[in-house]
Amino acid sequence: MQTADHAGLSRSTVIDHEKIGLPVGVMIAVLGLTMLVPAVVDLQAGNPNWRIFVQSALVVTGLGATLALACLRPLQPLTLRECFVLVVASWLVMSLAGALPLMLTADGLAFTDAFFEAASALTTTGSTVMTGLDGLPPGLLLWRSIMQWIGGLGIIAFGLLLLPFLGIGGLQLFRIESSDTYEKTVARVRVFARRLIAVYVILTVACALVYRATGMSGFDAVNHAMTTVSTGGFSTHDASFGYFNNTSTLWFAAIFMLAGALPFSLYVRLFDAYRTNLLDDIQVRTLLTMVGVISLMLVLWLTIRQHTGLGTALTHTVFNVVSIITTTGYASSDYLQWGTFPIAMFFAVTLLGGCTGSTSGGIKTFRLIVGWKIIARLINKLRFPDGVFPIRCGERIIDNAVQHSLLAFFTLFLTTLLGVAFALSLTGLDVTTSLSGAATALSNVGPGLGDIIGPSGNFSSLPAPSKWILALAMIVGRLEIGAAYVVFLPAFWRI
Amino acid sequence: MQTADHAGLSRSTVIDHEKIGLPVGVMIAVLGLTMLVPAVVDLQAGNPNWRIFVQSALVVTGLGATLALACLRPLQPLTLRECFVLVVASWLVMSLAGALPLMLTADGLAFTDAFFEAASALTTTGSTVMTGLDGLPPGLLLWRSIMQWIGGLGIIAFGLLLLPFLGIGGLQLFRIESSDTYEKTVARVRVFARRLIAVYVILTVACALVYRATGMSGFDAVNHAMTTVSTGGFSTHDASFGYFNNTSTLWFAAIFMLAGALPFSLYVRLFDAYRTNLLDDIQVRTLLTMVGVISLMLVLWLTIRQHTGLGTALTHTVFNVVSIITTTGYASSDYLQWGTFPIAMFFAVTLLGGCTGSTSGGIKTFRLIVGWKIIARLINKLRFPDGVFPIRCGERIIDNAVQHSLLAFFTLFLTTLLGVAFALSLTGLDVTTSLSGAATALSNVGPGLGDIIGPSGNFSSLPAPSKWILALAMIVGRLEIGAAYVVFLPAFWRI
Repeated sequence: MQTADHAGLSRSTVIDHEKIGLPVGVMIAVLGLTMLVPAVVDLQAGNPNWRIFVQSALVVTGLGATLALACLRPLQPLTLRECFVLVVASWLVMSLAGALPLMLTADGLAFTDAFFEAASALTTTGSTVMTGLDGLPPGLLLWRSIMQWIGGLGIIAFGLLLLPFLGIGGLQLFRIESSDTYEKTVARVRVFARRLIAVYVILTVACALVYRATGMSGFDAVNHAMTTVSTGGFSTHDASFGYFNNTSTLWFAAIFMLAGALPFSLYVRLFDAYRTNLLDDIQVRTLLTMVGVISLMLVLWLTIRQHTGLGTALTHTVFNVVSIITTTGYASSDYLQWGTFPIAMFFAVTLLGGCTGSTSGGIKTFRLIVGWKIIARLINKLRFPDGVFPIRCGERIIDNAVQHSLLAFFTLFLTTLLGVAFALSLTGLDVTTSLSGAATALSNVGPGLGDIIGPSGNFSSLPAPSKWILALAMIVGRLEIGAAYVVFLPAFWRI
Repeated sequence: MQTADHAGLSRSTVIDHEKIGLPVGVMIAVLGLTMLVPAVVDLQAGNPNWRIFVQSALVVTGLGATLALACLRPLQPLTLRECFVLVVASWLVMSLAGALPLMLTADGLAFTDAFFEAASALTTTGSTVMTGLDGLPPGLLLWRSIMQWIGGLGIIAFGLLLLPFLGIGGLQLFRIESSDTYEKTVARVRVFARRLIAVYVILTVACALVYRATGMSGFDAVNHAMTTVSTGGFSTHDASFGYFNNTSTLWFAAIFMLAGALPFSLYVRLFDAYRTNLLDDIQVRTLLTMVGVISLMLVLWLTIRQHTGLGTALTHTVFNVVSIITTTGYASSDYLQWGTFPIAMFFAVTLLGGCTGSTSGGIKTFRLIVGWKIIARLINKLRFPDGVFPIRCGERIIDNAVQHSLLAFFTLFLTTLLGVAFALSLTGLDVTTSLSGAATALSNVGPGLGDIIGPSGNFSSLPAPSKWILALAMIVGRLEIGAAYVVFLPAFWRI
């Protein structure tokens, strides 16, 4: 028997694999079809690599369609457990499918490297094991960018439509208010999803046009637009944005990275009649304030301690801070050369993340705001044990259950961070690489600290076990930690 | 008007400085009197340094007595706010007083170094800025040990009698059950304190006798007994326990460090008629299990990867793991040479700490147990949103308020850790030194990681600002983080 009072999700403990197989199959099939885009690009460029993409498209679309058809039947609401399995299975299977063309190309990647690269792309992390990007076939570069772009869209959709119902890390606050019937909810979700895709496409096209106007080639503009709006961070050049040594490009990139890190629900709301001022949102204000304050501190350090010119310091500071805080991961210069304070600052910024409901990862602005208020309240409680101190975030009141869930998120996030760092050290990595690697993977940022995986480094030299740990950490981070734990713990499968 | 329903503590917001001045004055005067012990030792050894201790004793005892007399009047219960101020003021003032003889000796320390050393001693951290220990006057070495021994006693007393009433970090659970009158509580506290001191002295004497029996000189045995039972970690030799290359000494030291890290309330309970089995306590069982599991992993690593002999691996692994997990901080060998996994392991172990109600610092076993259970419950809650999962720790039930307080402790602890690491990086320290320095100071362990502050290094070469940050972090760690925040935040002083 199923009850349906939990916002449309029933709590049956039986997992119906066919209900999960259908959406996963459709997603894989769509991913397979998009492989035809790099095929066309390679074909036009006269690069024989186009065959690889056609072959991969056939295999992946075929498998996806078969799975979907095998599971085809009238749509039914998913249970809570099935939702958990769906989100985890999607990322794993999509990463496997996306890795295929990377393995098949001439001088193709090993399975480990291909999975790492695809997981890094689809989770919009942007850590790469590929070098010599400037000389790769255009289709391959485009495929990496497309995976990030699709990944970004998937993250927003999951983050706004599915994760809130799972009650993870305080996200239950972001449920679309509704006590309506299942049919009405589905109808509303359809409208919402259509608008979301429209916003995402518009932002990407605008970004590409602006990049082209600042002097990028058309190909570079399209690729970087896709990896900017998705806060992914893959580039078509080994030097990342250092290749475009152009102040206006860097500033516009910062603006579009920030655009990708704002709550997309705000953009969607613009479709309705009433006006929305983005700055009315507490997450937006806080994120911009953090970027401002952190950049200011770094500019002071650079101009005073390192005697950098103010203009250069300002541009590179804002660009790199925005790149890391939005979890994009482009680099315009090796900020690890800036000194001890910037290194520590970039480590801390790696954990922060953008707004909930955006393409960015990390702890996220919403949780930082509420976490801060919980601590303030706790200290007030120590001083006045009988006082009542309600916590608000914008117009929302944060009740005890949400506070509990948030504090548990912090504990889980930081414990997982240490655990991943730990596992990495077991594979032979040094402390800085282990810890910053764990942080950059869990936050889906891209570069770490140190010579090996820093902004001027590359993940290719790591041992295979390290790469698997990092790839899984990226997926765990993308699932807001909690969802991964629920599914991977053996107890989930019992009963 | 004062209300007294909060376990004897009223909630008046006025701070009566005289009520705080009296106990602080008495503590300083007692600390001053103990300076006569190293004076006697130096006099017997014919070392002219004895004058310094007599002078310091006169000054410190004089100041303490003056303060106490100026504030003398019938004892009154402290308010909650006054308790907070008392704990913070005690550590700061005691550190200043304890630093005096270190500054006055020939080739005395600068003020920064002396404060660092005294704070490190009194908080039983054990980080040192002093080198060439083997050649120092015996009185000076003894004074460092005495400060750790007194600090250890103060920590247990604060931890069992005062901190539980402040409701910090879940410690409210450890209140001595009582709804009695103020007079009865005071009487019970007196009995408890007398027994506590007896236990502490007995343990120290036993430890010294055992050390002497394993071949230490009498002087070394007494010094190391005082810094073992207090889990302090100061040694009379630059090579720490590496100086006594003696397997039985290392094993007995491990046993007595563990004894210092168990809940002292269990020992005190032995005075009552009924028998107590230490292993009945969940904290004790968990701590011993953690030591066993971590040591086993390291032994496997050392024997398999580094081809160390089993006996040597076992002795040095257990000794150093116990030394770090109990937050003592002795070293028998430079475990940073053992490879990447041991380094990461020792970093993690630095944070764990011993049992609540002992001399050790860090997160502490009790919080690790409950934190683990909260996470398990949270994951259960995600799977079964309507399920009821009460949390127990031993026979205690952990209610929502305590859970909240504990989760906030984790958040505060880890945030403070990052904040301190951050501040250290601003003073020019590298990532490993900053992060491990912050961890070792906040957990009151002693050695950090890296060449500079690792087990074979020394804190003397750090810049002065780094030393101040670390010394304050030691005190903040000793105050269970929360108490320091309450007092140092400006809002506390308003109203």
